[in-house]
Amino acid sequence: MRAAVIHGAGDVHIENVPDPTIRQPTDALVRVVRACICGSDLWPYGSLPHSDTEQRIGHEFLGVVEDLGADVAGFARGDLVVAPFVWSDGTCEFCREGLQTSCRHGGSWARDGIDGGQGEAVRVPQAQGTLVKLPVAADSALLPSLMTLSDVFPTGYHCAVKAGVTPRTTVTVIGDGAVGLSAVLAAKRLGAEQIILMGRHRERTDLGVEFGATDVVAERGEAGIEKVRGLTGGDGTHTVLECVGLAAAIETALGVVRDGGVVSRVGAPQYSQVPMDFGPFLRNITRTGGVAPARAYIDQLLPDILDGRIEPGRVFDRTVGLDEVPDGYQAMADRKALKVLVTP
Amino acid sequence: MRAAVIHGAGDVHIENVPDPTIRQPTDALVRVVRACICGSDLWPYGSLPHSDTEQRIGHEFLGVVEDLGADVAGFARGDLVVAPFVWSDGTCEFCREGLQTSCRHGGSWARDGIDGGQGEAVRVPQAQGTLVKLPVAADSALLPSLMTLSDVFPTGYHCAVKAGVTPRTTVTVIGDGAVGLSAVLAAKRLGAEQIILMGRHRERTDLGVEFGATDVVAERGEAGIEKVRGLTGGDGTHTVLECVGLAAAIETALGVVRDGGVVSRVGAPQYSQVPMDFGPFLRNITRTGGVAPARAYIDQLLPDILDGRIEPGRVFDRTVGLDEVPDGYQAMADRKALKVLVTP
Repeated sequence: MRAAVIHGAGDVHIENVPDPTIRQPTDALVRVVRACICGSDLWPYGSLPHSDTEQRIGHEFLGVVEDLGADVAGFARGDLVVAPFVWSDGTCEFCREGLQTSCRHGGSWARDGIDGGQGEAVRVPQAQGTLVKLPVAADSALLPSLMTLSDVFPTGYHCAVKAGVTPRTTVTVIGDGAVGLSAVLAAKRLGAEQIILMGRHRERTDLGVEFGATDVVAERGEAGIEKVRGLTGGDGTHTVLECVGLAAAIETALGVVRDGGVVSRVGAPQYSQVPMDFGPFLRNITRTGGVAPARAYIDQLLPDILDGRIEPGRVFDRTVGLDEVPDGYQAMADRKALKVLVTP
Repeated sequence: MRAAVIHGAGDVHIENVPDPTIRQPTDALVRVVRACICGSDLWPYGSLPHSDTEQRIGHEFLGVVEDLGADVAGFARGDLVVAPFVWSDGTCEFCREGLQTSCRHGGSWARDGIDGGQGEAVRVPQAQGTLVKLPVAADSALLPSLMTLSDVFPTGYHCAVKAGVTPRTTVTVIGDGAVGLSAVLAAKRLGAEQIILMGRHRERTDLGVEFGATDVVAERGEAGIEKVRGLTGGDGTHTVLECVGLAAAIETALGVVRDGGVVSRVGAPQYSQVPMDFGPFLRNITRTGGVAPARAYIDQLLPDILDGRIEPGRVFDRTVGLDEVPDGYQAMADRKALKVLVTP
């Protein structure tokens, strides 16, 4: 079959790879109907040292079940399913607690012999714990929004949930990428009444306003911090959703968070340490967040998408075929596309 | 009057200082009956650059109200009162939320012209918001435990509360100082069934066991981490109460916390950055804690002390007069005393 591989920074190609087959009784074989490119895919696309050994890439997909291992119950061939960006058994203590990213028998796509999402098909390990059936046809107009259940929307949602967003908390979202916009949508769904979106790409922040942002701050650094403080009586917001992953964003988060507040991060961290000295200590700032257990949120978010109450799929502003995936990467890297949907 | 002053590392003396008087209608004048020396006092005692300008020191005291400003309601001369280690107005939004350490009109003892706790008397700003009446005589045998309400016990309690300790969470307490032992007592009060105390001073960890620790780990670093993991099925504990303040303790905390768990810190941080890279991100570790709003906890902890259900005052293992305060500092610095009570 054909699938995306990466050899190094800027070097993503579609190549022929071995066809996936059922290997374990807990496997499923899924033909990919939609995939997409993640902001986190841009980190290796931007900096991975070149290697002659290709790596598979992509961790978001939905598709049709083509085959099932003997131990996979609750699914049938022909089912449309979405896969969260980490696979998990669904039965261990961590899975039962809703932390499927720490599953005792789980793992990541596109590594250690597991297929990536950007390809024609995927062997899904621990299929029963991992996959969620989608009660729509494979040509549903809802596919883009359903596709976001794989990663970007639950990631934004996790950020807001971990921050403790409620109707009584004010919110700053840092970053107007697809995760940041998803976090706005999440904060709105959780009832927040003031949602300040920090971002400087007008077409993105416009979508953020449609998703629920009440204020947009285009300034960065100290100027941005001052602006947010000005919008909050000088105090900053109870919660800050950091959806970038850069040290500068963490610094901004500390600047705009209210005393006693929470900085929640879901941007894949491109830093190794963060300031944690006497300042945040005296202000009782909590830092939380991390990689989102998307599987934990799909069941509760799915009905809102099926009902049309929310449309997280609006973050996709470009659709490409599998052969155009390399162009999709470049478009996202150049910020010409917010998030790219793939139709293999 | 006489009070403790510090000129630099190792240089604490009792000197004559101006007698405090009521200056604002919100002030109270309190004659100190008990004070104590805090582990955090040892940081300047260990490293403050020498200066000819003395600084007052000490932030924990209880005493008798000798005079009251016109605006202070609810107190009378002769009342025995305890002061939390930060003074606060009790009326601003932060105080109403229980974050009196961020009070809009509050501040710290022993700086900016405010008396320290280690002295004969204290002018208490914002007395109505700050002080709590103690319904016992000034010679009560409960005074040591009541004295801990000023700082050390609420600090341990804050650590446990912020960590989210409940009967369902396992707990590691890092540090067998007075705060660590208070955190053990707090975790026990909050219902934790497994409380692992990391400390290597036998007489202190013995008290920790009496306070509720179920396991003691004397090893440090990697060996200590392995030991805690061995006691928890390999996973670590849901909550970690970091009561030291050194970078090594934070590293240990990361090593012993369970995926999805919380590291809460109340040790005054002697570091400026903490590791916050992909590891804790993938494990969804939350970091919380900070300076304890002791005032927020006194009302709920006081009855347990009055009833004799808990005896946090057992952390005091030496009592000195005001003149012996310098010896008290040295004894704590030499680890010959756990925590020193002062009877001015």
